[in-house]
Amino acid sequence: MMERVLIIGTGLIGASTGLALRAAGFGGRIDGWDQSLLELRAALEMGAVDGVAGNQWGALELARQADVIVLAVPVLAIKDWMQQLAAATGPGQLITDVGSTKLEITELACSLFGSENQAAFLAGHPMAGKESGGALLAEASLFQGAMWLFTPASQTPTEMEKEWRSWVGFFGTRTLDMDPKRHDEMCAWVSHLPQMLSTALAALLEEKFGDAPEIAAIGGRALRETTRLGASPYSMWRDVAMTNTAPIAETLLALEQRLGHVRENLRTPELRDEFALANQFRVRR
Amino acid sequence: MMERVLIIGTGLIGASTGLALRAAGFGGRIDGWDQSLLELRAALEMGAVDGVAGNQWGALELARQADVIVLAVPVLAIKDWMQQLAAATGPGQLITDVGSTKLEITELACSLFGSENQAAFLAGHPMAGKESGGALLAEASLFQGAMWLFTPASQTPTEMEKEWRSWVGFFGTRTLDMDPKRHDEMCAWVSHLPQMLSTALAALLEEKFGDAPEIAAIGGRALRETTRLGASPYSMWRDVAMTNTAPIAETLLALEQRLGHVRENLRTPELRDEFALANQFRVRR
Repeated sequence: MMERVLIIGTGLIGASTGLALRAAGFGGRIDGWDQSLLELRAALEMGAVDGVAGNQWGALELARQADVIVLAVPVLAIKDWMQQLAAATGPGQLITDVGSTKLEITELACSLFGSENQAAFLAGHPMAGKESGGALLAEASLFQGAMWLFTPASQTPTEMEKEWRSWVGFFGTRTLDMDPKRHDEMCAWVSHLPQMLSTALAALLEEKFGDAPEIAAIGGRALRETTRLGASPYSMWRDVAMTNTAPIAETLLALEQRLGHVRENLRTPELRDEFALANQFRVRR
Repeated sequence: MMERVLIIGTGLIGASTGLALRAAGFGGRIDGWDQSLLELRAALEMGAVDGVAGNQWGALELARQADVIVLAVPVLAIKDWMQQLAAATGPGQLITDVGSTKLEITELACSLFGSENQAAFLAGHPMAGKESGGALLAEASLFQGAMWLFTPASQTPTEMEKEWRSWVGFFGTRTLDMDPKRHDEMCAWVSHLPQMLSTALAALLEEKFGDAPEIAAIGGRALRETTRLGASPYSMWRDVAMTNTAPIAETLLALEQRLGHVRENLRTPELRDEFALANQFRVRR
């Protein structure tokens, strides 16, 4: 039975996980830790966690007593925590994460967890978020209707893993198990490429126009939507770029070539074919 | 006094213009014409127009009696109508348009309209729309809060032009006068580039994944927003691409290079600078 949860990283996703557990009826204790005291205090005040660790060593101490430890920090920090938790945890416990890339994490999990005298590890990725982070934006309903992906390292789930999966289901999510390599490739196309694209477009416009009032005057929904993700924080995306470099580079190159194709065909019937393909993509959605 | 209006092209923008005139209290007659009988009938049934022309010649006949003629068709069709209307109209009348590019239209207007024995022409561009067109999506409130740009060819507005500008103000729009060349360059950045980008991304994903269920499962708001414009119809954008080719090509090339820069710096601190610029752009919005 899951009775104690520790959330490491009480930003948007971590704090929302605490709130969602409460909203779903979890009656046990939830502790939290974040290296930002502001995030940690905000999570405590909004009831996303019941108590907090005083420092990183306190968090490791709480980890020893937790049934489930949720790693809700950027990917490279998740890998650091996995190393530290490997020595501080044992059988019966479950460590899970919400990192945006899964191959490096799942490979590391195979080497650190899952044997008989070790804690279990379940790599996860809720497809939810906002363009800005932070506990203040956390919501119990953040995961409602969203997809929560898992890239399990082993075929046989522990009891605690089964229970965690149930709680995630109670959040109102749908879940899907995927191969971690396939996960990272697919996410490069549907998530990382839109992010890099939006960042590049917003950066280009900022460099070209700065605070020219006409941009605000003329730009409508099209501009707003295609640059919205430009507000996303580097702190999180640095780790995504670091741990999924080749797949992201492949998608960027493909889009560069595609834009070149459009550019060279602005006055030819090829442009019609491009619109027809794009229309077809949208009809399916 | 504006008493008779003729709307040529009763799709989304044309029909919305009729509805907005009515909602703003216009008590005169509104006639309509569209080469699609379906669009024309829909506009009539929803009260966007009071009457319709039976064919193109009937529309020209109605044009002779109209105080204001609104051209709400794609840009190349606007230019065709301008040629036909030059012979059918005269002093006191105003022809205005809602085309997405303004340089070619404004240049043509200078040669066809505006002298003492000719009708006046006011080139306009409401920055409003939806990703799909058609009269069925028309709304009286479509222009509320939106920007309606004008690229006037002459410095001295006629009485009818002043009255049309008032009605546009009654729609709840803000208006701005711009140089037509500057208009087309700015619109290339804030409207045409987002459109081509969204089309290219959606076409790329359609070609690569077709109906793979995982795209639907994993893709979230980021994918939805960056590909939304992929649903836009070629019929309208062909004319934009044809009449604003060089500015659009310039923006596409700049974005291709920018994406290449991101691709080459996925693991370097340059990526941080790119996110910082993009963050700054969004903070201003």
